[in-house]
Amino acid sequence: MEIKKYKKDSDYSYTLGAFPTLELVDAMPEKVIEILVHSSFPEKEMIGEKCRKVCEERYKSNNTGSGSARITIPVRQDNKLIEKLSDKENVYVVGVFEKFSCSLNRDARHIVLVNPSNMGNLGTIIRTACGFGYYDMAIIEPAADIFNPKTVRASMGSLFRIRHELFGSFEEYTEKYSATVRVTGGETALNKNGARMFYPFMLDGSCSLQDAPKPSNEKFSLIFGNEATGLPKEFSGYGCPVRIEQTEYVDSLNLTIAAGIGMYEFGKPGI
Amino acid sequence: MEIKKYKKDSDYSYTLGAFPTLELVDAMPEKVIEILVHSSFPEKEMIGEKCRKVCEERYKSNNTGSGSARITIPVRQDNKLIEKLSDKENVYVVGVFEKFSCSLNRDARHIVLVNPSNMGNLGTIIRTACGFGYYDMAIIEPAADIFNPKTVRASMGSLFRIRHELFGSFEEYTEKYSATVRVTGGETALNKNGARMFYPFMLDGSCSLQDAPKPSNEKFSLIFGNEATGLPKEFSGYGCPVRIEQTEYVDSLNLTIAAGIGMYEFGKPGI
Repeated sequence: MEIKKYKKDSDYSYTLGAFPTLELVDAMPEKVIEILVHSSFPEKEMIGEKCRKVCEERYKSNNTGSGSARITIPVRQDNKLIEKLSDKENVYVVGVFEKFSCSLNRDARHIVLVNPSNMGNLGTIIRTACGFGYYDMAIIEPAADIFNPKTVRASMGSLFRIRHELFGSFEEYTEKYSATVRVTGGETALNKNGARMFYPFMLDGSCSLQDAPKPSNEKFSLIFGNEATGLPKEFSGYGCPVRIEQTEYVDSLNLTIAAGIGMYEFGKPGI
Repeated sequence: MEIKKYKKDSDYSYTLGAFPTLELVDAMPEKVIEILVHSSFPEKEMIGEKCRKVCEERYKSNNTGSGSARITIPVRQDNKLIEKLSDKENVYVVGVFEKFSCSLNRDARHIVLVNPSNMGNLGTIIRTACGFGYYDMAIIEPAADIFNPKTVRASMGSLFRIRHELFGSFEEYTEKYSATVRVTGGETALNKNGARMFYPFMLDGSCSLQDAPKPSNEKFSLIFGNEATGLPKEFSGYGCPVRIEQTEYVDSLNLTIAAGIGMYEFGKPGI
């Protein structure tokens, strides 16, 4: 298999750098196609050892009678390919992996990003989510490519620790994961999932973040809009619209900061 | 005066884009050297009008008998210079300004950044600080250049709304703004400023952010370290070292996110 520079429609992508590559190996060894190591990287042996160890553990924990296949992760040296994939940045380790799709955990807290447009921001939000224990992320398209190596890098490999799912619209997300479903006759009813509490973050949200009624269980969604435009007006009709109090001197907080603060406040122990 | 591409030792710098340029004009008209407008910018008149209005107001409010000079802000069209200064990005308005120095407000809350290395991060932290009402920022060098156009741009012009002061070391900062001064005989005593509460943010801080004892007045300093290395160990001996609780799955939060969360938590109304 010849590895080419990343394109949005590729079946694979890659991690740039040792740290996100080790995260990939640790969290999703079965998705790794191969690891590339540069001849100047001093710890090639360490990478190979790590891969063998993870594969062995995965084999043992999976092999509970059904005889699942043993996976291996090839590690090889290829300076030229690394330079090609990394645009001449100082990268010494690259992990090539198969793209994957996920379904979210219906009973968990979700982060919902509506049309995030910047790959660095998307990756940073994934990293923060992982740091605060939000492991389920819905992304409403159009959106920055979650598998682009820039997103993966900004996530520092946290992409492999969360579930993510793409939706064509917010309605598509709510139909799958929220409380109401259409039933015959055009009425709506609670579906088997029960209620999910929505918290859209908006500059003119009716509740301040600190005073917003906090959810009584894990079935809630923090919803953030696009970097430039925020959430569309109609979101003020969903759940409890939240604003982060700020002075008159800034037009708005940076999206990643707002998302970080929201996740912190709703992620405090006891919530 | 011929305007050249920015260098760290230039006496002037510039804002790139209409929004930060208007912030500059609004907050510091006396520092503006000139405004450059691109021929494709549709609202040249608006910029000129704004400048005249701000200068007029400044003249009126200053002119309380002492006869201060009337300032004017030249606005001119210069596509070539804009393209040179902005590295071919889509910029239609540039504000050229004199660099300035400030002293901090001794009685106010401070943000202290120890060796921030990334201009984008520094600018983003300034913007967040301004959004949460922290108008005094100490920067311990070596540090990213606060006047570099990249920093100014990331701050979205908030740089002109805060006071900042550079220090060669943290000790230099504490000597000027904190509680103790050296007196003869090598002893220390409270100086005229009284105590200032320090909150260094550290991965292994002894207090969790939400449980940290909050200050009883505005004389406190939130202290953040370098992007890659955090704060040096000795900071665990200052004031109340604070950690932001996080899962085992990330090595640390991004600096701008950590700073944003810290400012949010300590900036809540009532504190």
